[in-house]
Amino acid sequence: MIEISIIGTGNVAYHLACAFNKSEHISLKQIIGRRRDALLSFEHICECITSYNEIKDVDLLIITISDDVISEVSEAIPSLTAIVAHTSGSTSIDALKKHSKRAIFYPLQTFSKTRKIDFSTIPICLETNHESDKIILEKAALALSKSVFFIESESRAHLHRAAVFANNFCNHILYQAEEICKEHKLDFNLLQPLIKETVNKAFDTGTFAAQTGPAKRNDRNTINKQLQNLNTADQKLIYKTITQTILNTYGKEKL
Amino acid sequence: MIEISIIGTGNVAYHLACAFNKSEHISLKQIIGRRRDALLSFEHICECITSYNEIKDVDLLIITISDDVISEVSEAIPSLTAIVAHTSGSTSIDALKKHSKRAIFYPLQTFSKTRKIDFSTIPICLETNHESDKIILEKAALALSKSVFFIESESRAHLHRAAVFANNFCNHILYQAEEICKEHKLDFNLLQPLIKETVNKAFDTGTFAAQTGPAKRNDRNTINKQLQNLNTADQKLIYKTITQTILNTYGKEKL
Repeated sequence: MIEISIIGTGNVAYHLACAFNKSEHISLKQIIGRRRDALLSFEHICECITSYNEIKDVDLLIITISDDVISEVSEAIPSLTAIVAHTSGSTSIDALKKHSKRAIFYPLQTFSKTRKIDFSTIPICLETNHESDKIILEKAALALSKSVFFIESESRAHLHRAAVFANNFCNHILYQAEEICKEHKLDFNLLQPLIKETVNKAFDTGTFAAQTGPAKRNDRNTINKQLQNLNTADQKLIYKTITQTILNTYGKEKL
Repeated sequence: MIEISIIGTGNVAYHLACAFNKSEHISLKQIIGRRRDALLSFEHICECITSYNEIKDVDLLIITISDDVISEVSEAIPSLTAIVAHTSGSTSIDALKKHSKRAIFYPLQTFSKTRKIDFSTIPICLETNHESDKIILEKAALALSKSVFFIESESRAHLHRAAVFANNFCNHILYQAEEICKEHKLDFNLLQPLIKETVNKAFDTGTFAAQTGPAKRNDRNTINKQLQNLNTADQKLIYKTITQTILNTYGKEKL
């Protein structure tokens, strides 16, 4: 039985706590949060505390907070014999340098409290500064997912950049599509089959081969007409930029 | 029984022909293509011809060719009593002005010959200049899909622009994510659960609420670090553009 505690009360903390709680190989000991009200949704799961001084020593303490305060919180918690891990894709393991046994426990997924998550297919990226901690980290991750692997900080940062494109940027592109629909009283759901096929095709045939559209065809008439008919500066800027980078990708001339 | 012929031998023609061929309400008469070799994959379906002079009159003739030659081909085919329709999202119905009964038959999907398509959920956007042709057009579309609706040229152009964002631009963003993975010997498939959840979340919670990431958080440290570590000019340009439009969307200051 691996004993785990979690610092943080956000979306990642919530989904990790729920998933660990279901595993028979994990004993979830404490959730540590600054605000009592934020801990309410965790109280049915395990002990909830607000003071770092009450942290019990466990096998693995997972810090799931904003990237920019990981280092600060790591310094503020007492020295422990636990492996101390964070869940950030873009933060170095060195942010935990106060602790002799430090690690990364990075689930490659986007989390929201209101959506159910099937952890079994989510890749969990691990890293540790102690070879001997690998087994316990791997066991903890395998309690959640079938897709578990060790990856160094530098590679994890590359993966996180790719994830920013895939998740953050795609979502924003879809936001602009939704805005165009709203503006013209069209149902955004009409685009759902198209977008799902776009993603399936990207993984089946590869994204280079899957590209279609006016930019790929270098169809200047359609490009100019569409640019003219976009209503916001942001939409025009995105249209110009992505059209240009598609033209570049397929060896076409400058817009 | 509705009699239909198709001009064109591309991906849309192929999938339409296969789907119409399966319907008991449709009799597929002819496929018309310029090149005999391109017609080979249609020969098991119905009569294939290369000359516009051999076109038989039917109920509905669907032109599925590149946007920029629709007008030219429409002029080149003989005058018919058939409804003459094209399948383009961004071309006006006026491109078919030679024909007294003209229409649009626009399936909102991305097609490739090698991928199976389930037509039943694909929205089919219809338009006609003859109120009395609505019934036959609708019947032809309902033979393929449950999602059939009439929409005017102007609204269809808006929908097509939204589709360019959703399909063409998202695919290109995924292309850049795939490139980052390849460059650093990371498996692009690791991003698959993330991207699928991104799309599901976009439609469940709306794209505005679904946004996460360094740009949404206005996390300048991560933004600058990621920008520095991108290796191509195109990736940097896309990163800067989309980060700026996300900052704009959430009322943050200029990058």
